[in-house]
Amino acid sequence: MSDLKTHTIDTVFLTESGDEIPQPHFAYQTWGTLNSERNNAILICHALTGNSNADDWFRGLFDNSGIIDLDRHFVICINHPGSCYGSVGPISINPTTGKKYQADFPNLTIRDIVCLEQLLLDELGIQEIELIIGGSMGGMIALEFCVMDDRIKSACLIAMGASHSPWAIGISEAQRIAIKADKNWNNGFYSDEKPPNDGLAAARSLAMITYRSPHDYDRKFGRNWNIQKEQFEVESYLNYQGEKLTQRFDANSYITLTKAMDSHDVARGRGTAKSVLGKLDLPVLVIGIDSDILYPIHEQIELAELLPNATFREIKSKYGHDAFLIEFEQINQALRQFCTKRVAIS
Amino acid sequence: MSDLKTHTIDTVFLTESGDEIPQPHFAYQTWGTLNSERNNAILICHALTGNSNADDWFRGLFDNSGIIDLDRHFVICINHPGSCYGSVGPISINPTTGKKYQADFPNLTIRDIVCLEQLLLDELGIQEIELIIGGSMGGMIALEFCVMDDRIKSACLIAMGASHSPWAIGISEAQRIAIKADKNWNNGFYSDEKPPNDGLAAARSLAMITYRSPHDYDRKFGRNWNIQKEQFEVESYLNYQGEKLTQRFDANSYITLTKAMDSHDVARGRGTAKSVLGKLDLPVLVIGIDSDILYPIHEQIELAELLPNATFREIKSKYGHDAFLIEFEQINQALRQFCTKRVAIS
Repeated sequence: MSDLKTHTIDTVFLTESGDEIPQPHFAYQTWGTLNSERNNAILICHALTGNSNADDWFRGLFDNSGIIDLDRHFVICINHPGSCYGSVGPISINPTTGKKYQADFPNLTIRDIVCLEQLLLDELGIQEIELIIGGSMGGMIALEFCVMDDRIKSACLIAMGASHSPWAIGISEAQRIAIKADKNWNNGFYSDEKPPNDGLAAARSLAMITYRSPHDYDRKFGRNWNIQKEQFEVESYLNYQGEKLTQRFDANSYITLTKAMDSHDVARGRGTAKSVLGKLDLPVLVIGIDSDILYPIHEQIELAELLPNATFREIKSKYGHDAFLIEFEQINQALRQFCTKRVAIS
Repeated sequence: MSDLKTHTIDTVFLTESGDEIPQPHFAYQTWGTLNSERNNAILICHALTGNSNADDWFRGLFDNSGIIDLDRHFVICINHPGSCYGSVGPISINPTTGKKYQADFPNLTIRDIVCLEQLLLDELGIQEIELIIGGSMGGMIALEFCVMDDRIKSACLIAMGASHSPWAIGISEAQRIAIKADKNWNNGFYSDEKPPNDGLAAARSLAMITYRSPHDYDRKFGRNWNIQKEQFEVESYLNYQGEKLTQRFDANSYITLTKAMDSHDVARGRGTAKSVLGKLDLPVLVIGIDSDILYPIHEQIELAELLPNATFREIKSKYGHDAFLIEFEQINQALRQFCTKRVAIS
């Protein structure tokens, strides 16, 4: 475990779309100690509904077989701005109005998230980031960090691509339409007592389908009937998962972050993906999952092909997209080889 | 065009779950003339949100290159019970109460739908059905007809399997959760003036994603931005498709029919799929689509392998599941070969 640290930055952040976020604040966790050269950091980027508690959801990396060595590394995981785990987002008080932002919280791009988090890394005096690692939305943020921040010395990008595909945008939008259909939605200005939980649950249940694979659902549920609930086990599971998320997540944050993911396009305003990625000479480990239907493996192969110093590794898994939170043995093995190779070269 | 015919049957239908539907009525369309032997019928089964207007949505079959010959065939397409196009369903008046059924309309299984439609076919005096054809939900109904009705002499089953997979049930349930989240849902007893359109639109937008393929979305939309609507083209498309369905479909019908699809399992209560399908010796053309992610092609291959007198044909298409409503050239070619072969054998 690691305590949640907080930090407020006395500035006005300007988003790409020109909106202001005054005095952005951050909640984050760290493990290990920043060395005197301030160059032993590992930055972990969490996914859509994740949070800074990386030694829980990414515990495999902290295991004995993982590459994290807390005698040597300083690990940091920041709750992404836009979310609802302590960094600035829709549930924060807008210092200008004294009220919660709610749906007035500005649109954030993945690049905005990176710029905001750079402010915190600056204040913490981090000079070099030995490794940045992220899967899914975390991978998108990590990739933009590679482009935007010279401090990044190597990266591990899992289960995402150079841009958010129209397919994935469509899946996001269907979820947002469901949230906005909720009786309590009220254009995003809902009460604490009556949040749009049914809509958020619908969005989550849809997302859960895309996080796994048809084969995994066959194996896990079959056509088994839950007599008590008078529904198929798979229906019971999706309802449970939907309701569970509503106990820990905010609908406006869900919309803010899915829109940020939709903004993800490493080439936007910079030329082509080929030209942008071709300039990145840092070592990158790109990991794809063979059963991922949300960010299919061809997206990671493309990414690895466009990055001049990339290593591509395929994870074989029945778990689909979620495998990046499950298949620690394969991820650790790939990371160990990647890190060893780098040490050998340098 | 063909006029919509209606027929009410003076009986009380008992569903598999033991509910009563008094005086079920049907709306259907026919083309051509039933011959004196009453054995020249082709029965077309429509899909989830389809209707009896088969010469529109299945127009390719009525083309010169199609197998339908209106000088020889009597074609019939019945609006499936449970839907909202004129046959008995949630928007019908329950003769017992004098009010619309709405959410009190009984759960229907695919087998209930077949039994109901058999009543109409009996009344029309149809002795033999030369060919039954259906895709998606229509294919499920057609397959159950093959098992349950000796009148069926041959079948063409497109883009479905021997049972509805847990994956597909999950997709259905996520859609139902979205409908039920709608502010106007009111447990299914909504007013005509305020139906749960946002929820139904959310369900439809989700479904639209599963009807196509990631590749098709890449090609069709890319990451193109709609400046006027300030959203990606794919978002604009999904919102449009969602809203469009609400103008022609009923939310309770959507729930009734998706639940019927979830009930689809040719083996339920009969043994194994192998034993049930192994007994069907009629000629069956099974068509699968290589890019279908909702009912992947392995489901059709399995179906064809278990049917002793089946021909399997793969449609190559970028359109995903929707290809069964688009790729008429390939479907017609497969059907022509199938019908010619049968004539040659008989």
